[in-house]
Amino acid sequence: MPVNYQTPRAKDLFPVAGVRLGVAEAGIRKPDRRDLALLVLAPGCRVAAVFTRNRFCAAPVEVCRRNLALGSETRALLINTGVANAGTGEAGRQAATDTCAAVAHLLGVYASQVLPFSTGVILEPLPVDRLTSALPRCVADLSPDNWHAAAHAIMTTDTVAKAASRRIDIGGRTVTLTGISKGAGMIRPRMATMLGFLATDAGLPASLLQQLVREAADESFNCITVDGDTSTNDSFVLIATGQSGVDLADAREPGYAKLRAAVVALAVELAQAIVRDGEGASKFITILVEGGQDRDECRSVGYAIAHSPLVKTAFFASDPNLGRILAAVGYADVNALDVDRVSVWLSAGAGEILVAEHGGRAASYREEDGARVMRAAEIAVRINLGRGAARSTVYTCDLSYDYVRINADYRS
Amino acid sequence: MPVNYQTPRAKDLFPVAGVRLGVAEAGIRKPDRRDLALLVLAPGCRVAAVFTRNRFCAAPVEVCRRNLALGSETRALLINTGVANAGTGEAGRQAATDTCAAVAHLLGVYASQVLPFSTGVILEPLPVDRLTSALPRCVADLSPDNWHAAAHAIMTTDTVAKAASRRIDIGGRTVTLTGISKGAGMIRPRMATMLGFLATDAGLPASLLQQLVREAADESFNCITVDGDTSTNDSFVLIATGQSGVDLADAREPGYAKLRAAVVALAVELAQAIVRDGEGASKFITILVEGGQDRDECRSVGYAIAHSPLVKTAFFASDPNLGRILAAVGYADVNALDVDRVSVWLSAGAGEILVAEHGGRAASYREEDGARVMRAAEIAVRINLGRGAARSTVYTCDLSYDYVRINADYRS
Repeated sequence: MPVNYQTPRAKDLFPVAGVRLGVAEAGIRKPDRRDLALLVLAPGCRVAAVFTRNRFCAAPVEVCRRNLALGSETRALLINTGVANAGTGEAGRQAATDTCAAVAHLLGVYASQVLPFSTGVILEPLPVDRLTSALPRCVADLSPDNWHAAAHAIMTTDTVAKAASRRIDIGGRTVTLTGISKGAGMIRPRMATMLGFLATDAGLPASLLQQLVREAADESFNCITVDGDTSTNDSFVLIATGQSGVDLADAREPGYAKLRAAVVALAVELAQAIVRDGEGASKFITILVEGGQDRDECRSVGYAIAHSPLVKTAFFASDPNLGRILAAVGYADVNALDVDRVSVWLSAGAGEILVAEHGGRAASYREEDGARVMRAAEIAVRINLGRGAARSTVYTCDLSYDYVRINADYRS
Repeated sequence: MPVNYQTPRAKDLFPVAGVRLGVAEAGIRKPDRRDLALLVLAPGCRVAAVFTRNRFCAAPVEVCRRNLALGSETRALLINTGVANAGTGEAGRQAATDTCAAVAHLLGVYASQVLPFSTGVILEPLPVDRLTSALPRCVADLSPDNWHAAAHAIMTTDTVAKAASRRIDIGGRTVTLTGISKGAGMIRPRMATMLGFLATDAGLPASLLQQLVREAADESFNCITVDGDTSTNDSFVLIATGQSGVDLADAREPGYAKLRAAVVALAVELAQAIVRDGEGASKFITILVEGGQDRDECRSVGYAIAHSPLVKTAFFASDPNLGRILAAVGYADVNALDVDRVSVWLSAGAGEILVAEHGGRAASYREEDGARVMRAAEIAVRINLGRGAARSTVYTCDLSYDYVRINADYRS
């Protein structure tokens, strides 16, 4: 059960003019489930993306990078779940290219205009035949109203589909943004996360779109972790169809700040949904590290805390064993940290509790206060490093029996 | 239950001339258990140590560093379990100093000649009164034959006491080495680990002893991880009493290589014992990374694999979901890694299985072979990075339900 997250209803996911979606059951790994999604873009759409920094990146990631580098107009995105097509070498690249060619043939476009995405088990070959056999059913299913179905068709160990949608007004015109994401384990994006797709009908030049996808990823998917494992397939794609009639030529246009804020907010919502549905998660934890010399060191502290199995199991147990947080701060990558200047607060809702300062437990701290906060489903940890003005936020979840169960059973 | 490890019998732990040990029940955190150990050294012993790099290092670590820096001859080591005296600020430093003074008073030495060590819960004050009240009982218990009792008195979540002992011949004389260690969780030493003590009756000059303790730590405690959490209290101490009559003036002396090899072997045994008794461990895993450009990048790959919760749960489940190993190699800190040159082997006992090469699954790999190896209690993973001649080994264990249970319940 995810922590305070529900998939929006299908009717609350607004269609984005210029984007049609279709799904099918291809039987890629398991029968009787939708495991293939096709997004078809109208001519004139712009697409920008960021991908995993894992050096064992999946074959579809390599093909995406190559096709995007060619500069041809992207007309379709094909996403399968079940098999990640990662750790598959040259045969995997060929498989990804073959699926693009099959899509291109059906749609009457070039193979380089198709971006492939895969998620699932690593080291296993992609069943290209089953996938291409299901493609005509995806095409027959194409509709602007299929965001909800597509969100379901890209799930792996997710217990709920993740989607978000909103409409904003820019200069008297309505601009729509709708996105989907997936992921629950192997979550520690370095550029983006396991498959996030966000479309708007605003128009943006390519360079600005690329800048925006980077910035949005950096404030959303790059702030989350479930288990510290950077996936081989992480991809976050931003699509601008331009069909709302709102065209923003550069970042100084009055409407851009509003669009940017909406894109970032939606990306944060989709990224947080992944953590809320993190494998075995029973708590959603926000770690704000401030008072650093730069953002990197704040992020290092945030991730040290978020990745510590000892901190995560203490959250799971609702045990205010908060020395584990100090230990994680102490081994994070911060040069010449003066621990006597570090302060730690804990909160759940209103009212923060000062836990530690001057290198030790705060005189005012009482165990029963810590215990009360630790029982909440949403907990915030705030750390002040006392050495600067930089800050960074990391979102994570706890480590429970169910995490072990899910990952011990994943392939069975 | 530890993986293939048993505490040696008391009679198999040879006394080291110049070292007497005493233990007592001080009731530091729990009643009715030996939780205090005192090691008293004869005049003329030399002591060298390495400590945690955690910046939130414990108060006793700070006091040890200060006392060792003063250069006075160490005459006693006091070790308590139950409370780590870490994250305790100035009050913690005072508490550690007070216990040193109490030992010094009883033994008729200076407080700066006493080294304090603590392990247990972080952020809680050390109960100095209970500890000092028990000191006379430690002194009354002093004996050269108490290594076995001392190994028990320093345990925390350890399920077994850890000790090792051997005798070697140098130039016709017998040299004895005996050591103890503790630790099962919060194990990812950066300099040494949660309390390891190793004594020999060989004589060594101070600089050589310091070099040896560093080298031995680097080949043993610095190669292990259970959960990636670097402790606030890690300490590894090497004691040379000189009472065997074997004095080695420098590293070129004929006997030194033999002594060094014995010290390293004993340290490796004690370090591996910690992993074999890792919290919830059901498998002991050796990760050898070779073919790197330098040792650091090999170690980075080894630790990325060893820390991956996904890899660790796959080992727990005996599931050859080996793509997770590739994913971990891919996000380790190796600059410009060419994944097509990476090879991965798996083994348990004789006969290695080639799992992956050329960026994908090896043509010869069969799932049933991987499954057979994964069922073993001791598994070796060998990675060749294909870019140099450096190598490094990391020892770790799996991640099981019991890890979560132990750390969710730790303070209850």
